[in-house]
Amino acid sequence: MIRLTATVLCALLSVAAQSPAVRSPEKHADGSVTFRLRAPNAKQVTLAGEIAPTPLPMNKGEDGVWTLTTGRLEPDIYSYRFVVDGQSTPDPANPALKEGGSVLSSVLLLRGTRLNAWDLRVDVSHGTIHRHMYRSTVIGDLREFDVYTPPGYETSSVKYPVLFLLHGSGDGPVTWVNYGKANNILDNLIGDGKAKPMIVVMPNGHTLPSGETDRSKNTPNFAADLRDSIIPQVEKLYRTESGKSNRAIAGLSMGGGQSLFVGLTNLDKYDYVAGFSSAIPSAEQLPRAALKAPAKLLWIGIGKDDQLLLRNEEFEKSLKEQNIPHTWKVTEGSHNWRVWRRYLTEVLPLLFR
Amino acid sequence: MIRLTATVLCALLSVAAQSPAVRSPEKHADGSVTFRLRAPNAKQVTLAGEIAPTPLPMNKGEDGVWTLTTGRLEPDIYSYRFVVDGQSTPDPANPALKEGGSVLSSVLLLRGTRLNAWDLRVDVSHGTIHRHMYRSTVIGDLREFDVYTPPGYETSSVKYPVLFLLHGSGDGPVTWVNYGKANNILDNLIGDGKAKPMIVVMPNGHTLPSGETDRSKNTPNFAADLRDSIIPQVEKLYRTESGKSNRAIAGLSMGGGQSLFVGLTNLDKYDYVAGFSSAIPSAEQLPRAALKAPAKLLWIGIGKDDQLLLRNEEFEKSLKEQNIPHTWKVTEGSHNWRVWRRYLTEVLPLLFR
Repeated sequence: MIRLTATVLCALLSVAAQSPAVRSPEKHADGSVTFRLRAPNAKQVTLAGEIAPTPLPMNKGEDGVWTLTTGRLEPDIYSYRFVVDGQSTPDPANPALKEGGSVLSSVLLLRGTRLNAWDLRVDVSHGTIHRHMYRSTVIGDLREFDVYTPPGYETSSVKYPVLFLLHGSGDGPVTWVNYGKANNILDNLIGDGKAKPMIVVMPNGHTLPSGETDRSKNTPNFAADLRDSIIPQVEKLYRTESGKSNRAIAGLSMGGGQSLFVGLTNLDKYDYVAGFSSAIPSAEQLPRAALKAPAKLLWIGIGKDDQLLLRNEEFEKSLKEQNIPHTWKVTEGSHNWRVWRRYLTEVLPLLFR
Repeated sequence: MIRLTATVLCALLSVAAQSPAVRSPEKHADGSVTFRLRAPNAKQVTLAGEIAPTPLPMNKGEDGVWTLTTGRLEPDIYSYRFVVDGQSTPDPANPALKEGGSVLSSVLLLRGTRLNAWDLRVDVSHGTIHRHMYRSTVIGDLREFDVYTPPGYETSSVKYPVLFLLHGSGDGPVTWVNYGKANNILDNLIGDGKAKPMIVVMPNGHTLPSGETDRSKNTPNFAADLRDSIIPQVEKLYRTESGKSNRAIAGLSMGGGQSLFVGLTNLDKYDYVAGFSSAIPSAEQLPRAALKAPAKLLWIGIGKDDQLLLRNEEFEKSLKEQNIPHTWKVTEGSHNWRVWRRYLTEVLPLLFR
């Protein structure tokens, strides 16, 4: 173990003494935001993430603090990170982090004068999030799934329909709540009478066993884990309405592909299927010639700046060619959570009608 | 908004191309660990946190990556962070973060050949974590409390005793689970028959309303919020055994002080009271002359290197002087989670006996 000398200690203390905490991010009244990072010896610092899809260079001050002030930003939730001489880092001055992801990012929440669909509201009741651990017989490990129950669930004896809500490849089962704010969106829509009260199950979509490198097995593994491990537990632990008219599946990116695969190959189990910015399953996994529509809803949304637009357009073309009823939305935006919160807000009111 | 020029973009891409991801932390077979951070232009980088209570200087390589390899470390859970030219930052190469805290720290989990009390085990059943939002009439905001229910809770009709488990001032209600691993400790002790199955309620101990600067109000506010907001909800939402013999309160640091205050001023409600490394309440808040013992357990633990040792010794002296039965433990360790996981493991088997 390295020993600390008095000289080094004094150097450390003197550095600490010279480094008052910076304030970041600082929200201004005009809707602009200032980001700051102390990095006195860095040669280049940029701001990256959802806040800046193309990284933005920051400016170094004489005090060693790098700064960038944006123009007015739309009230929304943005992830961001700093890139310091090539090394990505979250904002050390901001305790709000995007959890469950593979890249460490900080979170900026901008509330406007008008409420957004995902804002936490005091005028509606709030559901509960439940975190379960289980042994997956398919993957062979201990893993997690999370469940949202609507306000009043614990004190009633009513049964509820179930939405399975799937995350993307860069995220985990907690991300739909902790960053996607799915619970707030549900609380608000249910509180306003715009969505039916429902149970929402958020499984872990990373289903390659340790050491398995064939990524094409991920979707079939997920389908098996959902069917054999998760659904039996959900039906045992929660008051769920049975039957396909009370089952929906939706997801984003990787989870969008999983939703389309599971939903469209199990039409006897799911009446509602939605894919957000989906990693469309290959024609081998989901043969296009055999496609049929779910009984109630097939919803596909993609941002016009999303790199998966072409694959979604091709898939939608095969739906049209076969006269399969579906909803097709090409919206503003790229492959990020700003889009996915809006898609969830649009789809929830369509379920279980 | 700052515009990105082609020159800047090329510079960024070239930096990114030159920066392969570093591996950190890297665990070695002999129990040592290597930490790495790319910071090519930094003048000084140190390793700090529970892993290095006195910050350790790291060494810069020609590739701009700073490195430190420890000696053999005890299998345990350690928080750590890097300090780069005076700026603290978590490890960008490590997705495991300490959540809910005021300082961003990374987490190193070292498992040994022997299981630790907090290790996730496949041979025991696992309880469920529930996250609730509520409007606090005392503090006036929307806030969270978390609840652990033991394995089998959802499928039985048994009633359970309740432990209220409180966090410290640098943490939040999620920290006892996400970093303290209280759920694993409970699953393991219950699975091994060493602790009684119980419900554990983890409230938010930060109870100063926005704008309130008088910190002495925090503990009485907490006591009021627990009594008026949290306990009524817990009794409505969960199958709890009633009566003081089925109520315990324990906490660490700030939460240790709150536990002693609430427990010792409500002997008609709590038979079990424990303080871990406690911020002992002042004699004004908790008059020493009026102290009486809880019916079953008063447990006080403190590390011999903890800065709160003297305050705990003084408090213990007044207990002894008044012949108040109590358990007094001065252990190895300082003011950190390595101590608190061990204290919880020691106290849980003593409850509800």
